[in-house]
Amino acid sequence: MKYCSDCGATVTHKMPEGETRLRFICDSCGIIHYQNPKIIAGVLPLWGEQVLLCRRAIEPRYGLWTLPAGFMENGETTDQAAARETHEEANAPVSNLTLYTVISLPHANQVYMIYRGELPAEDAFSPGTESLETRLFHEAEVPWDELAFHTVRKTLERYFHDRKHGVFPVHNFECPPMTVKLAT
Amino acid sequence: MKYCSDCGATVTHKMPEGETRLRFICDSCGIIHYQNPKIIAGVLPLWGEQVLLCRRAIEPRYGLWTLPAGFMENGETTDQAAARETHEEANAPVSNLTLYTVISLPHANQVYMIYRGELPAEDAFSPGTESLETRLFHEAEVPWDELAFHTVRKTLERYFHDRKHGVFPVHNFECPPMTVKLAT
Repeated sequence: MKYCSDCGATVTHKMPEGETRLRFICDSCGIIHYQNPKIIAGVLPLWGEQVLLCRRAIEPRYGLWTLPAGFMENGETTDQAAARETHEEANAPVSNLTLYTVISLPHANQVYMIYRGELPAEDAFSPGTESLETRLFHEAEVPWDELAFHTVRKTLERYFHDRKHGVFPVHNFECPPMTVKLAT
Repeated sequence: MKYCSDCGATVTHKMPEGETRLRFICDSCGIIHYQNPKIIAGVLPLWGEQVLLCRRAIEPRYGLWTLPAGFMENGETTDQAAARETHEEANAPVSNLTLYTVISLPHANQVYMIYRGELPAEDAFSPGTESLETRLFHEAEVPWDELAFHTVRKTLERYFHDRKHGVFPVHNFECPPMTVKLAT
């Protein structure tokens, strides 16, 4: 941030009086521009024993497998955002959404909120514009070495574990930065 | 938003090519400025049978009772944000934080995340600068007509209900806009 979005003057990154954090403050009108974490909402779409994954057609992690998920928009609820992203990325109309993982990524200023959701049919999906491929996987088929994000891996690991016990609590945890390993 | 925070030129609220939502787009450099919901993290602090509430020393809802909560900051996890707000507003060091309510407020572009947390002692709290008063309440003493927010009421209602059954699932739901009733 270099300019004030309210008046167009320059901003300075400094500590407001009585605060303990650096903020962008307008040099002219004095307004403080706060910056806050964003929510990424998504779904673990289920069909019987199988889970739906999408192969990314966009950067970052082009070509790797992910769960349908994306930035929550203003005016939405978290489950509406998760369902919309699943529709956009996999053309999949999921139902019975139940909150499953809530994952903080403090290094990225993001919070993931992933729901479990049910597909209505074995073929009720197809690649959206941001996906190269969409496909159902049994546990033994999951491409663990070609997953796009830690959050996806952790959500899948917990799901396959919980499924053995038939209990699906909400998991709330922190995910460390991912070591970037280029797929070669 | 009137000016581009990257280059200082004017912005126009319009639909980017290939998108279905209005965005603020810079008339000069063309950057799209996305706006997303914010997370409000807080705690339901518990001491035995009692819950801790704070009477607000700031607007909105000056003088009404609330749970310690506030905007999550960049670089934090959700539970760190909840604990920090509890320290700031009630000087209370809570432990054993467990996610409890996740509440979407689409009309306000906010998502509340409230944790259950334990106080270390009966007097381990005092008003922070944003609170007029901090105090423990038994269920029968809760000032239901003087609560600041729907999210606080709903969280307390669910807690007292769940406590009767000894089970505390994560509650994920939507809260409608509050009808403003001025305290007279």
